Amino acid sequence: MECFDRAEFWSREEIERAQLVRLRNVVGQAMRSPFYAKRLKEAGIAPETLKSLDDVRRIPCTTKDDLRSQYPDGLNTLPQCEMVRMHASSGTTGSPTVIHYTQNDLNLWADLMARCMHMVGVRREDVFQNITGYGLFTGGLGLHYGAERLGCLTIPAGPGNTTRQLKIMRDFRTTVAHIIPSYALYFGAALRDSGEDAKNLALRIALIGAEPHTEETRKRIEELLDVKAYNSYGLSEMNGPGVAFECVQQAGMHVWEDAFIAEIVDPDTLEPVAEGEVGELVMTTLCRQGMPILRYRTKDLTRFIPGECACGRHHRRIDRILGRADDMLIIKGVNIYPMQVEQILMSFPEVGENYQIVLERENYLDQIRVKVEIKEEHFVEDMRVLRDLQKRITNKLRDEVLITPRVDLVQNNGLPKAEGKAQRVVDSRES
Amino acid sequence: MECFDRAEFWSREEIERAQLVRLRNVVGQAMRSPFYAKRLKEAGIAPETLKSLDDVRRIPCTTKDDLRSQYPDGLNTLPQCEMVRMHASSGTTGSPTVIHYTQNDLNLWADLMARCMHMVGVRREDVFQNITGYGLFTGGLGLHYGAERLGCLTIPAGPGNTTRQLKIMRDFRTTVAHIIPSYALYFGAALRDSGEDAKNLALRIALIGAEPHTEETRKRIEELLDVKAYNSYGLSEMNGPGVAFECVQQAGMHVWEDAFIAEIVDPDTLEPVAEGEVGELVMTTLCRQGMPILRYRTKDLTRFIPGECACGRHHRRIDRILGRADDMLIIKGVNIYPMQVEQILMSFPEVGENYQIVLERENYLDQIRVKVEIKEEHFVEDMRVLRDLQKRITNKLRDEVLITPRVDLVQNNGLPKAEGKAQRVVDSRES
Repeated sequence: MECFDRAEFWSREEIERAQLVRLRNVVGQAMRSPFYAKRLKEAGIAPETLKSLDDVRRIPCTTKDDLRSQYPDGLNTLPQCEMVRMHASSGTTGSPTVIHYTQNDLNLWADLMARCMHMVGVRREDVFQNITGYGLFTGGLGLHYGAERLGCLTIPAGPGNTTRQLKIMRDFRTTVAHIIPSYALYFGAALRDSGEDAKNLALRIALIGAEPHTEETRKRIEELLDVKAYNSYGLSEMNGPGVAFECVQQAGMHVWEDAFIAEIVDPDTLEPVAEGEVGELVMTTLCRQGMPILRYRTKDLTRFIPGECACGRHHRRIDRILGRADDMLIIKGVNIYPMQVEQILMSFPEVGENYQIVLERENYLDQIRVKVEIKEEHFVEDMRVLRDLQKRITNKLRDEVLITPRVDLVQNNGLPKAEGKAQRVVDSRES
Repeated sequence: MECFDRAEFWSREEIERAQLVRLRNVVGQAMRSPFYAKRLKEAGIAPETLKSLDDVRRIPCTTKDDLRSQYPDGLNTLPQCEMVRMHASSGTTGSPTVIHYTQNDLNLWADLMARCMHMVGVRREDVFQNITGYGLFTGGLGLHYGAERLGCLTIPAGPGNTTRQLKIMRDFRTTVAHIIPSYALYFGAALRDSGEDAKNLALRIALIGAEPHTEETRKRIEELLDVKAYNSYGLSEMNGPGVAFECVQQAGMHVWEDAFIAEIVDPDTLEPVAEGEVGELVMTTLCRQGMPILRYRTKDLTRFIPGECACGRHHRRIDRILGRADDMLIIKGVNIYPMQVEQILMSFPEVGENYQIVLERENYLDQIRVKVEIKEEHFVEDMRVLRDLQKRITNKLRDEVLITPRVDLVQNNGLPKAEGKAQRVVDSRES
């Protein structure tokens, strides 16, 4: 079988042999950072103490809060002048999560991404339309560099503007698109409504990720766009996209185990779950130089799919993401924590105690609506005053979470009162 | 003097010797495209007929309309599988201008861009915050690859979100920013209003371009941000940024004449203007492989600055852009032709005959307002109907010109009637 690089088809023995060597190596590298120097010393971990791959479980887990506490560069193992790229999560009130990359790290990331794309049949002859945001979000530049590595004609189309996307797709005979699932549905419906037959497009592959989605969504995208759609998994803490990717079997996503160690654990006990059981995905970078991360708790719930894949690759497969072990929301590919919304709302003196975040779906696109109670003395009759407040809240939320929510100002006590734990998030997307 | 590459300090003789060799070469390459094969044959041009650099004037000029007429790929000299990148101007109603790049073209572009940045003191140790849009606009990825070539820590911050930009700038001690001039003014004012002293920032260099601006604007940016600000000139037809750039003398922009031939001509006669006179800049790519462009009429008005630069470089300098030889507008770094706006407006049956494009400046940021007359039978009393129409016009204009205009619906005959030629564009930014 044609392969992008040799590690793609390593046997289990080759994978695991490399994993142990690389694990010792990356632990040694990680100890150069202030954070891991202390953390690993306290746990009695040094490279030579790792005798087998099972010893990875002796390493303490790293959490998002650890990353935040080390902001801006406490996990870096090399001086800043060795770093050539930075990506970051959204957020200005708390500390965002920041990832630093050396040139080697970028090269490896591009190689892994190219391997993913090559695996599903993307080749140098393809025209690749990258329909996602660039910038600090890793999805855009991640796929961009992967496509460049393959030598595709890369069109950095960016997000939105359906008319223009469709014109580009037609006129340049795009064969491969990277697109988030909710926008793919919207785009497909717009195509259908325009009366154009998707079969007339040259598009044959959609790479979809950055948002959890169901098998039904994938099928619908495949029908609407007349393509094969492949699920992509990644997170900025592990570079970005290029962590796990479906092969043409479409039966789970192969985790590139030459570059990462993946574990699935019980989120409460942190013990490994039984083969095939659902748990929290915990990931270790095996090759990252500038900012290694050991046993990162992704909070993503999934399972290993038992057995060998028909494609012949021996990198284990994870199932599509089945949920979250925390309250993080993913809207339009952007990660949002309810706490971010709360911090912004509470910074307005006009805002009362109660608020609600409602997830909605309109015309296939996910939206976020924030209903917020306004204190009695500020809920005035002059609509201009309220409209101004609404605008200020909207803008500040948008600056924080990077998408524009709809904001409803509600009279004091206008929202349902919680008896016990307040239900801050209401998901009305499926209703 | 420290230099990025040898050609940066070539003597006039070295530059001109290389130019003639490269001109012959690029003419030969251009002839592989359907467009230039015909055009050059008709003009009796072949590489061997070019005896001296003055012979460049025998080559017919290429216009934006030529590029549009050759949409999508009539200027390509190589099969599509050799192309690895595409950039395009805005626009969906007419044909956008499209540029294709081979990997060599991208490498050369990154080298030129890195040379520009290096010239003003950007080094590997710098932290570079790229505060411009990525995607099809060449400004974002252009500077991004230049900074990567230099090995800077590149932060792909993208446009907007002042709070976040400022947080990144503080927390990562950004030393160099790429920022469009109008946003630099806005950002600087926001910084001042926040009570923070710009001297406390690590920022020392602002690279400003993509919008014509005055010396006063530069000085103001330098004061507000406590930086040196350097003017950058480029256009996607000549790769993007990296065509001409100020050195630390800040006395005009050196055109990289090892990579381009620059002429300044009378826009009516196309004859060269006298030394130091203002005329239209005409540019030829000397090294581009995938899509060479010969004698491109940029429509930008400028002049060669006479004499040698104190920096010791012999690449001639052009003055800051002094105007346009056509009606193109540049708002927020985006190129807009009034005709694009007209085409969209006229596609609405409700729209009458008269409209006006008003350029405004609010809080240092340029805005575009479109006033449009609505036919009497559609100017109904139901505000919801009008608001819906306003929204549809706004969205369609935004999809076309890529920035969101303000749209005022005006009663029939509500706009001033023109006696002769209608004044479609009103620039009220300075008033």
